[in-house]
Amino acid sequence: MPLNKGFVLASRPKGAATESNFRLFEKETDQPGPGQILVRNLWMSLDPYMRGRMDEGRSYTANQALDQVMGGATTGEVVASNDANFKPGDKVVGPGGWQLYSTSDAKFWRKVDASKIPLQAFLGATGMPGVTAWIGLNRIIHPKAGQTIVCSAATGAVGTVVGQLAKAKGARAVGIAGGPDKCKFAVEELGYDACVDHKAADFAEQFKRATPDGVDGLFENVGGQPFQVAMARMNDFGRIAICGLIASYEGAETTSLPDMRIMLVRRLTMQGFIQSEFRDAQQPAMEELVSLAASGKLKWRETIADGLEKAPSAFLGMLKGKNFGKQLVKLA
Amino acid sequence: MPLNKGFVLASRPKGAATESNFRLFEKETDQPGPGQILVRNLWMSLDPYMRGRMDEGRSYTANQALDQVMGGATTGEVVASNDANFKPGDKVVGPGGWQLYSTSDAKFWRKVDASKIPLQAFLGATGMPGVTAWIGLNRIIHPKAGQTIVCSAATGAVGTVVGQLAKAKGARAVGIAGGPDKCKFAVEELGYDACVDHKAADFAEQFKRATPDGVDGLFENVGGQPFQVAMARMNDFGRIAICGLIASYEGAETTSLPDMRIMLVRRLTMQGFIQSEFRDAQQPAMEELVSLAASGKLKWRETIADGLEKAPSAFLGMLKGKNFGKQLVKLA
Repeated sequence: MPLNKGFVLASRPKGAATESNFRLFEKETDQPGPGQILVRNLWMSLDPYMRGRMDEGRSYTANQALDQVMGGATTGEVVASNDANFKPGDKVVGPGGWQLYSTSDAKFWRKVDASKIPLQAFLGATGMPGVTAWIGLNRIIHPKAGQTIVCSAATGAVGTVVGQLAKAKGARAVGIAGGPDKCKFAVEELGYDACVDHKAADFAEQFKRATPDGVDGLFENVGGQPFQVAMARMNDFGRIAICGLIASYEGAETTSLPDMRIMLVRRLTMQGFIQSEFRDAQQPAMEELVSLAASGKLKWRETIADGLEKAPSAFLGMLKGKNFGKQLVKLA
Repeated sequence: MPLNKGFVLASRPKGAATESNFRLFEKETDQPGPGQILVRNLWMSLDPYMRGRMDEGRSYTANQALDQVMGGATTGEVVASNDANFKPGDKVVGPGGWQLYSTSDAKFWRKVDASKIPLQAFLGATGMPGVTAWIGLNRIIHPKAGQTIVCSAATGAVGTVVGQLAKAKGARAVGIAGGPDKCKFAVEELGYDACVDHKAADFAEQFKRATPDGVDGLFENVGGQPFQVAMARMNDFGRIAICGLIASYEGAETTSLPDMRIMLVRRLTMQGFIQSEFRDAQQPAMEELVSLAASGKLKWRETIADGLEKAPSAFLGMLKGKNFGKQLVKLA
């Protein structure tokens, strides 16, 4: 069996996560047992939700266990299979973890057609982040033509898709992103009608100008001060999908709602969600995203860390917004 | 025409409302024009939403205009009618305002059958407050058997009905109220399984003991610190109906949500609502409440201010929680 390499969670962060929270391991790859497959991971996904799993506190996913391989999605190629549905060479996506090889039950994996879409897209625009965007929009925000939909982390893996799907519904899409380069990309490549730099000193003023008719739907990935600015612009019957609060994950900036009266006065609906719990939405979301991507109608950008060893630093950078588009690790 | 008496809004409150914000008037009652009816108001409703209308800020209802009769619901008797659907002697409920006689379009009024239910109940348990309870529960909270539903201002006009409807669904109903007398009434008369006094020094501890399985639905009428305590006990997929935030209406105590992460981590849904906007719910809600009340299955308590002149002081007392049950003014 080939030599496997990967990262385990060595310790839980105290405040901000550091590289010392991860430990590299090397060991012989496990032989697949009955009903299992051996996958060579080619691409690894880095996602903000992983930070929550590193803490001990109650979260929406099980905690990442100490000294176990860091969990996460990968795409790769089947090397050996003890399951009738998979054969060597099949391209698959599944919970491969932060490692070069995964030996696990076949039921956790699904085959993907990478003939028209790059394999790694199944970790981004046509994978979990894309499905997250689809569900937040179609099941919580329900954008209508002419309405204004705001999305934070507009060029992130989720925000990239939110803007394009909102535009396809005829809505005005307004992004929030960190820095002029990301804002430029959001408007020129992703089709956002406007994008406001949350690092700008006059962010609130700029945001107001970008949302002259107020905000009907808010897809929140970040939290912090920009969230409060956006909330103050909500229109009557506005919907707020709380998808992520990455600004608060490291304990530095708590995201609060300073005055609940806005929920009542504007009759707002706010919902925190995790995409995997919308079981019946997975299939239609995936089909729509794959179809859009295959026809070239869905755009995205990737930040690629080259090699497994780069995973911790790339992950920590992503938590600070250093990535531009979907953060991936290229494993081979 | 008889002499009419009533109150207009004399000035907008700066901070807490005072009696000087209201001014008594006396003038001859207007003759009903074509399509209008003249109603002698017998009972007048005092409701927390009226405080919001006294301010200039954006709220969910139109502002109360200065020097105009204070708006509000009344029940009474038709004295003269220029509409085929009404005749003198009919018992009616409508937007009569803070005055003894109302001359207005017949379309604003509806006839009620006060043969089995006291007339003033159409301002409380079988009126707007009861419908508010019904909508918050059935359209937002969706209580299921065995779940824990919490309601603040548990003995108020709305909370009175929330507890009884939640119990009818097989839920555990836990009230929050101000003082041991109200808590005793909530449990012994209204059927709440438990009621916690928010004035108690160890409120948070008591609340925890009263909700051993956490909170699945929160019907929020008050806000403030008890709201935060209840929010911290929310279970996964909990629903929060924001019906009122009376603790914040006078500007004394802002109701905040200090850490939004709970919305995400527990996948909560929170909705601010106003009952009148659920048009299709009015009929079923009213029918159910009238039927329960007529058969003696719906209980309530009233605090009655005797005479129009008492309206301002009774209203200000209600904002401080001095009422016990539905606050009414008996006009005749």
